[in-house]
Amino acid sequence: MARNTQVAADHNAPPITQQLAQFVATHPSRGWSDAVDHEAHRTFMNWVGCAVGAAGHESAEAALGAVGALQPAPQATVLGRRDRVDMASAALVNGITSHTFDFDDTHLKTIIHPAGPVASALLALAEHTGASGRQLIDALVLGIDVSCRIGNVMYPDHYDRGWHITGSTGTLGAAAGCARLLGLDAQRTQMALGIAASQPVGMREQFGTMTKPFHPGGAARAGLMSALLARSGFTASPKAIEAPRGMVQTISTKCDWREATDELGQRFEISFNTYKPFACGIVIHPSIDACAQLRAQGVTPEQVERIELKVHSLVLELTGKKTPADGLQAKFSVYHGCAAGLTFGRAGEDEFSDEIVNRPDMVALRAKVVATVDNSIDEASADVTAILTDGRRVHVFVEHAIGSLQNPMSDAQLEGKFHGLADQVLGADATARLIQACWQTGGAADLRALARLAVPA
Amino acid sequence: MARNTQVAADHNAPPITQQLAQFVATHPSRGWSDAVDHEAHRTFMNWVGCAVGAAGHESAEAALGAVGALQPAPQATVLGRRDRVDMASAALVNGITSHTFDFDDTHLKTIIHPAGPVASALLALAEHTGASGRQLIDALVLGIDVSCRIGNVMYPDHYDRGWHITGSTGTLGAAAGCARLLGLDAQRTQMALGIAASQPVGMREQFGTMTKPFHPGGAARAGLMSALLARSGFTASPKAIEAPRGMVQTISTKCDWREATDELGQRFEISFNTYKPFACGIVIHPSIDACAQLRAQGVTPEQVERIELKVHSLVLELTGKKTPADGLQAKFSVYHGCAAGLTFGRAGEDEFSDEIVNRPDMVALRAKVVATVDNSIDEASADVTAILTDGRRVHVFVEHAIGSLQNPMSDAQLEGKFHGLADQVLGADATARLIQACWQTGGAADLRALARLAVPA
Repeated sequence: MARNTQVAADHNAPPITQQLAQFVATHPSRGWSDAVDHEAHRTFMNWVGCAVGAAGHESAEAALGAVGALQPAPQATVLGRRDRVDMASAALVNGITSHTFDFDDTHLKTIIHPAGPVASALLALAEHTGASGRQLIDALVLGIDVSCRIGNVMYPDHYDRGWHITGSTGTLGAAAGCARLLGLDAQRTQMALGIAASQPVGMREQFGTMTKPFHPGGAARAGLMSALLARSGFTASPKAIEAPRGMVQTISTKCDWREATDELGQRFEISFNTYKPFACGIVIHPSIDACAQLRAQGVTPEQVERIELKVHSLVLELTGKKTPADGLQAKFSVYHGCAAGLTFGRAGEDEFSDEIVNRPDMVALRAKVVATVDNSIDEASADVTAILTDGRRVHVFVEHAIGSLQNPMSDAQLEGKFHGLADQVLGADATARLIQACWQTGGAADLRALARLAVPA
Repeated sequence: MARNTQVAADHNAPPITQQLAQFVATHPSRGWSDAVDHEAHRTFMNWVGCAVGAAGHESAEAALGAVGALQPAPQATVLGRRDRVDMASAALVNGITSHTFDFDDTHLKTIIHPAGPVASALLALAEHTGASGRQLIDALVLGIDVSCRIGNVMYPDHYDRGWHITGSTGTLGAAAGCARLLGLDAQRTQMALGIAASQPVGMREQFGTMTKPFHPGGAARAGLMSALLARSGFTASPKAIEAPRGMVQTISTKCDWREATDELGQRFEISFNTYKPFACGIVIHPSIDACAQLRAQGVTPEQVERIELKVHSLVLELTGKKTPADGLQAKFSVYHGCAAGLTFGRAGEDEFSDEIVNRPDMVALRAKVVATVDNSIDEASADVTAILTDGRRVHVFVEHAIGSLQNPMSDAQLEGKFHGLADQVLGADATARLIQACWQTGGAADLRALARLAVPA
């Protein structure tokens, strides 16, 4: 194959590592709007729910099998389980479970899933050190700001090249957050970022395997250890992120440095975080949303003769599977999405179980969905008409699906999603208490009570 | 900056992940020549010596500070220290110390330092599991074969791009070796390689900081954990190394797939491993060697009026520092190299101490060295003439310095190097016993006795 035709190195990059470290170490506690602080709580709560929900998944079992071989000290909680492991291993496993259902948060500008790497490192560290909830929320906002800003610097080239951007930028976010939580000064924070810069995690080829959710977990672990190393005096290049042979120029050709520091401390990337209402690829969401709205208007599956769905061509390209054989295939079936939306009004992990997917009523309802391409409809929209057996037509057009930046999930909807994930692990009452604890994180004396609430009785 | 101009993805790569896994899992024990097996012992011994020698370095202290925060179980030995930590942390710390003096082995075709990632993972795992010495040597040969072959696939583009190739390929080597040591079948070995493929470690910008030796340590740890995860059933892409968005195509434009499997099981890359006799950059080695030969011929510093040194221009470009102020600067001074060679007949870590570098006789001797560029002389050679106070001229031409592939260090010289590193940590008698244990590794029932010999009394 041909030799590398890389563009010339940029020797004039601004001192991003230093600037971000200074910011992370010195920005005032809660130095942002109430809206940003609330978004941080939503991000944190959604992450806890996802991690608890997947606690029994075989990927968690396998990860704990490996971690158990190290005979870890019981420093921190594995969410949704009775296992306690050392804080670095807890960061790893919680990072894995939080991304296992692909149901976690999304920074749409970069398609980074920001919470997995950062929150997983922070909760484990905070639980062990006794840090306050305010310290955790501060560190979460700042850590996510670092990972998403570096994502903005590199996206989309870096992602196009093959990197799973959640894991490759997440190590920096986790290191930044943990450095903040540990109270490191700017110089040691700079070293933490530097050590982390040598450890981007994850290639896209892993999508569809357990190693995909390993990426945020591995990033969380690596970021936490980077901060601990820096605290102990371990050194790295002070220009590790931006230097010609530093992280960004090595793993991305696009290097838009302004994204790293423009409006730093004014604009917070966590403001642009979104939460998935449905446990499947985002292009199906408008169709599910539309069918759920039909249901809310009183339309029942029994009444339906035919569902006419008009969508952008991309939707059928990516999710045009008409007769999915199991839950995994159903995640790539806009037909199943419509059937689930109309039948249940939701499409969480349960509605993508093999059992539901193969239920005769679902098979029958999918067969009634007629999808056609209409490229005048945006890929973030869907146009659905239900033709009922009595001849009536009920039409719903969704411009921006629930969960998008323009139409975010409400706090109550996030709670509903959380219950859908956690009730079967913790029970509904305990889940409700855990949800309350998540909302109150910023005022909590420490994170230990919250972590206990995430352990099944 | 410009958008990425990456070459088109290669969708027709051979199934390297599968082929290498099959090889690692099924190649017969000691399925190679005695020469290869002996080279494996030399590689292992040299690695032990380097790790013991740097055990007291501040980078080891800092790393153990971070590891200690995890309250690790005492599963494995930190070489040259009384600390015992969990096996993954031992892999990390021993990997760091073995590369701290930049005195470890070199696979010259790729400038990979092969032992650091692989041996560090293997000894820690073997010590904890009770694996035999034969199992360790087998796994070392096979693990190094994997990392160096993947290095051959990507070198030099991958290195040019900014990756520290020791850490980026080392994770695969460590995973392969540990999978072998754990007795994983081909399918699980393939998963171990797949998990490891998402975790290349290290950028060249870190050179000159502690994060440089962190790279083999981090790779050792990641590889070991990848094998443990695979053993527990964790999954990865079966084409994680070669797929279009897999490891190699994501981090290198050069993808010479034949290098991965040509003569697999016939040609072993460990055969091309070399060991540094001198604790500095390799371009100075011929000059040191030449001056040590002058000393062996009876020339003393007092007799010398002038030393005329002729070398390739690259030597003075990289190491032209005439008046180094300290040990670190002296490593980039061919003048100091000549002075050390003539005075001591060696240039180990001690001869690059601040104290030696600033000794008046060394300062005076360096001033007597007159270096000139002669590009008819290869960069791997040196031409030295000593002009003595009585008018005599003594000439030495070194074509291939000691430690090169053409002129390897003898076993006795490797032992001498080991003593130079380890005597001050363990004492000369204990060091001699440890050296004997290293030579006898292939016949050892387990590695525990050897590890105990590497702990100071």
